[in-house]
Amino acid sequence: MIVEKKILDEVVKQVMQALEKTTSLETRSMDIPVGVSNRHIHLSAEHIEILFGAGHTLTRQKDLKQVGEFAAAETVTMVGPKGVIRGVRVLGPVRKTTQAEISRTDGFSLGVVPPLRDSGDIEQSASITIVGTQGSVTLSEGLICATRHIHMHTDDARHFGVSDGERVWVETSGTRSTILKNVLVRVKPDFRLEFHIDTDEANATGLKSGDVVTIARCQEV
Amino acid sequence: MIVEKKILDEVVKQVMQALEKTTSLETRSMDIPVGVSNRHIHLSAEHIEILFGAGHTLTRQKDLKQVGEFAAAETVTMVGPKGVIRGVRVLGPVRKTTQAEISRTDGFSLGVVPPLRDSGDIEQSASITIVGTQGSVTLSEGLICATRHIHMHTDDARHFGVSDGERVWVETSGTRSTILKNVLVRVKPDFRLEFHIDTDEANATGLKSGDVVTIARCQEV
Repeated sequence: MIVEKKILDEVVKQVMQALEKTTSLETRSMDIPVGVSNRHIHLSAEHIEILFGAGHTLTRQKDLKQVGEFAAAETVTMVGPKGVIRGVRVLGPVRKTTQAEISRTDGFSLGVVPPLRDSGDIEQSASITIVGTQGSVTLSEGLICATRHIHMHTDDARHFGVSDGERVWVETSGTRSTILKNVLVRVKPDFRLEFHIDTDEANATGLKSGDVVTIARCQEV
Repeated sequence: MIVEKKILDEVVKQVMQALEKTTSLETRSMDIPVGVSNRHIHLSAEHIEILFGAGHTLTRQKDLKQVGEFAAAETVTMVGPKGVIRGVRVLGPVRKTTQAEISRTDGFSLGVVPPLRDSGDIEQSASITIVGTQGSVTLSEGLICATRHIHMHTDDARHFGVSDGERVWVETSGTRSTILKNVLVRVKPDFRLEFHIDTDEANATGLKSGDVVTIARCQEV
């Protein structure tokens, strides 16, 4: 029997698509890759001009895993009442409001206590002075210690059986194995699966970028 | 009825002792106080003389919670291939072998990777240079990142139903609530109940000295 080439191609194509869908949604791993966030800052257009000069725009240096996000070539200096941290990376793209994210350890170096907040929730957060190549700005609020969270694509959320805004337990392995409770799940169609922690959490658990964690299946007894 | 004073005193004494025992062993809290260990060093007599001069002995500045242990007035400078940390506290009493304990974050500052070890297990651990007021010494081994552990008196071990050398899960509360797995229990008749963590673990969990934790009663499902 000779099958027409066009029909054969179509059958092969549809079988491949079906297989791909099965692989990505049902048999894929329960591993979640880790992304460790070092101290960084997101800047408003106004602050970019104050810090780096009128008309300045950020220079894209390296794409981050989340779509559209990038590490800029620009860095700033953070100045607190007790210390200074140089070389703090600016992350793009430009945001409506400036937000600086540091660890608690950085807070001790600077002499400030960054409140633990979900990204975006900066009302009455901490103050910090930011210095660029052309100027400086003192934020009355905008300095936070970001709460750990998982970025998930809509398909990932279905795969893990969780929804946007839910808090889950995340389990790490190794000598310093830990269950991190109270981990925020953020779901968006353009998110890529990634568990974001800060450097304190990375050092305390022994995790580094590219390691994997799982959602903990434990219960209190 | 008149009871002889001596007999009455004896009865009161025995009842009070029985009550005290009940309180300390059965109805007492399941809370374990936290002690955060900042970077520090234990020195051998030989190294004390090299660093601070012939015949020098440590000056007791502040007693620690564990019996006999104290913070000395002396501090040293740690020098690694990438950085220097000043003002590192010497803890007494003098030890048979020098052991320096730092966090992973300190390791990044110094440019060394301290292996995660139980205190005392320093064979083939990391190298570091220590500088005092009168001299310096480069340890070929002795620099570690100490594993978290709970000091327990023999009565505490009975109270918590655990034994020396056992590994337990420790649970913290608060926004950054965490279950720290793989926590070593150390039992000795002269130990005082205390959960020792380093500054990375403290910052990642939001714990500070004097906070309390509990042994986690969870199981994987």
